[in-house]
Amino acid sequence: MSKTSNGMRQSRLFTKTRREAPADEVAKNAQLLVRAGYIHKEMAGVYDFLPLGLLTLNKIIAIIREEMNAIGGEEVLLSTLQDPTVWKKSGRWDDAVVDVWFKTELKNGSELGLGNTHEEALTALMAGHIASYKDLPRYVYQFQNKFRNEARAKSGIMRTREFIMKDLYSFSKDAASHAEFYEKAATAYENVFKRAGIGDKTYRTFASGGSFSKYSHEFQTVCDAGEDVIYMDEEKRLALNKEVYDDAEVYAATGIDKASLKEAKAIEVGNIFTLGTRFSEALGLSFKDAEGKSSPVFMGSYGIGPARLMGTIVELLSDEKGLVWPESVAPFMHHIVSLGKPGDEVSKAAEDLYGDMTKAGHHVLFDDRDLRAGEKFAESDLLGIPRRIVVGRDAVATDSFEVVNRATGAVEKKSRAELLAK
Amino acid sequence: MSKTSNGMRQSRLFTKTRREAPADEVAKNAQLLVRAGYIHKEMAGVYDFLPLGLLTLNKIIAIIREEMNAIGGEEVLLSTLQDPTVWKKSGRWDDAVVDVWFKTELKNGSELGLGNTHEEALTALMAGHIASYKDLPRYVYQFQNKFRNEARAKSGIMRTREFIMKDLYSFSKDAASHAEFYEKAATAYENVFKRAGIGDKTYRTFASGGSFSKYSHEFQTVCDAGEDVIYMDEEKRLALNKEVYDDAEVYAATGIDKASLKEAKAIEVGNIFTLGTRFSEALGLSFKDAEGKSSPVFMGSYGIGPARLMGTIVELLSDEKGLVWPESVAPFMHHIVSLGKPGDEVSKAAEDLYGDMTKAGHHVLFDDRDLRAGEKFAESDLLGIPRRIVVGRDAVATDSFEVVNRATGAVEKKSRAELLAK
Repeated sequence: MSKTSNGMRQSRLFTKTRREAPADEVAKNAQLLVRAGYIHKEMAGVYDFLPLGLLTLNKIIAIIREEMNAIGGEEVLLSTLQDPTVWKKSGRWDDAVVDVWFKTELKNGSELGLGNTHEEALTALMAGHIASYKDLPRYVYQFQNKFRNEARAKSGIMRTREFIMKDLYSFSKDAASHAEFYEKAATAYENVFKRAGIGDKTYRTFASGGSFSKYSHEFQTVCDAGEDVIYMDEEKRLALNKEVYDDAEVYAATGIDKASLKEAKAIEVGNIFTLGTRFSEALGLSFKDAEGKSSPVFMGSYGIGPARLMGTIVELLSDEKGLVWPESVAPFMHHIVSLGKPGDEVSKAAEDLYGDMTKAGHHVLFDDRDLRAGEKFAESDLLGIPRRIVVGRDAVATDSFEVVNRATGAVEKKSRAELLAK
Repeated sequence: MSKTSNGMRQSRLFTKTRREAPADEVAKNAQLLVRAGYIHKEMAGVYDFLPLGLLTLNKIIAIIREEMNAIGGEEVLLSTLQDPTVWKKSGRWDDAVVDVWFKTELKNGSELGLGNTHEEALTALMAGHIASYKDLPRYVYQFQNKFRNEARAKSGIMRTREFIMKDLYSFSKDAASHAEFYEKAATAYENVFKRAGIGDKTYRTFASGGSFSKYSHEFQTVCDAGEDVIYMDEEKRLALNKEVYDDAEVYAATGIDKASLKEAKAIEVGNIFTLGTRFSEALGLSFKDAEGKSSPVFMGSYGIGPARLMGTIVELLSDEKGLVWPESVAPFMHHIVSLGKPGDEVSKAAEDLYGDMTKAGHHVLFDDRDLRAGEKFAESDLLGIPRRIVVGRDAVATDSFEVVNRATGAVEKKSRAELLAK
């Protein structure tokens, strides 16, 4: 792809775009991402990320990483292969308890699982590193591939059998210090969704805490493509999911008026759980307080799927012409489209502009191919890069380049010097 | 871990070091990396990367990525879950042909494999993106988790059942243009090993090309912990492996004199193969030349395991006190060790130095804990950060800080201003 640190030439990009959506995709996100050459479908619920798709995914991952580091997260990378021992201790090895297991085996016939989540593995690991109240709190996270044997997989990259997940686990000395971090994590999640361009559509949503606590929280993004239904209070920026919609306590706790709620379809883009001592007791993770008394560590877990977030952005922001990326997650900020012919003045000017903009630190996709202008513009719309800079004869002659905003369609005129400025 | 972009405080790092090597590890790399808290063993042949270990692994990955981009590589991320269809076409689905498969199944009983390599998947994918000679050459790579059901796994992180692999695949129009890229890739590999600090011990090694071509090449690092045996010509910087040691043709082709070869144990840190049309024919990847004649694409594959490289560096460079990282792959460049007590002048000076060095762009691990100096120094040696800066009473009073080079033991004296300078 002849990638300098900041640029990519389309003549060297291997992916081809398609005019038609693939017949086997029903979800808009998959249709557009496949058409634009961002992803490739291996089988139902299993996708590859191609160069532009991987750049986008990595932008989203970088945003999440920054927010996790900002609240004290320490990054690790745990294994996919799971030893049944720890899962048997927590009671979650059985397929009747966890119905999304993929299992495999070693040469000697011992069973192994493919990790669908990592409470067990990480809790067991932390037992070697936490002994005293002085070792608490700890916040450990990873970006790691999860495997879930979903019966259905029709939502493109939003619900897949294999996906990178950011999962953070918190280890606190008691419920009170846990609650403090839980609130920080919720705010960090809201920051992620704001930065990724879907903050205004995303609601902190009360859900059942299951066996762990009274409530957990989902982050639900209102969108017709969603598989979930939420009931939202648009003014308070809070919502409830179906599980707790008829629970009087949640109205008492939140001050929400049931009558003011609006029903909407939504996509779950994140969730946070209080786990309490469910896993620390099962797996022997305890600490001694200042008096030498031993207690189980109080835990929480916090998940975001970067690819689901990417799919949600596509569902929400794309239009009839193609993808529309917010600047924060776009694979490149600028798309230079040269209208020159090989060797002519326009081509040379486009080459120079590309070279100088990337040197100046701009992130640029450069359409340096010899194709018709109409074809180039249609493909540029499909790819969804935020700002298109058109390099044609008049622009070069007058030093006035059209910069088209992909999201709004607004056109600005800029000189070469203005384009180079940071 | 209270990680700014450039620094980490040990008071917030969750990993504890150990004085003793774990009883179940025989390989030096695993013993030291577990003791230093860089990795955690999940089971034989399966390891987690903890914060310092992941930083190191990511430094290695970044070096490899730069070198792959420099030779025109385009990065993707393919799936672990493998559809049998493509593997049946190439004849490699059968466990009798590929004896390291992990297999699993979907809810409906369909078999799936966990990818042990990606020739099949990528060749099938590229058939959607290569049609003409104008679409060639293409060089596509990924850092992706491979799964191999190894019968034995006793070499620490050098031979595991699950590991990140950088695998690049080249797609060329004919053998001649393939050969040109193959040579470029070999040079890029040599650059990687040089930059990672093991260049002087690493030999380009002739190996059998198997069914694909006359020879393939391994990159073998001379080391007593190696599982392989090579025969090296130290002057020519070339070697042969056992497969081709008795092959007269290899001596004729290379000008190596069999009598001058020295036998040595070695670790295979990379390999490059000419695949020819083996996979493109099986999976229907062809292109049309300028005259419209169709031919199968000519392929090569190129692998490096970043964790094996990390393990090799440990085997080669560590000493009786612990890990010794080259600057290029160390998780941090500097290790500030404060000898202060909570709240005293020395502690404050160490805090200020840490804050100012990280602000100035230095990458610093900061031992801000209240422990005995001897304990801190022993742990600093175990962690292997290249430069230790000792902040004690005299150093602060005289503005003259001891900087100890972990690899050589050499001690320099530097002022605060000199430490801050880039």
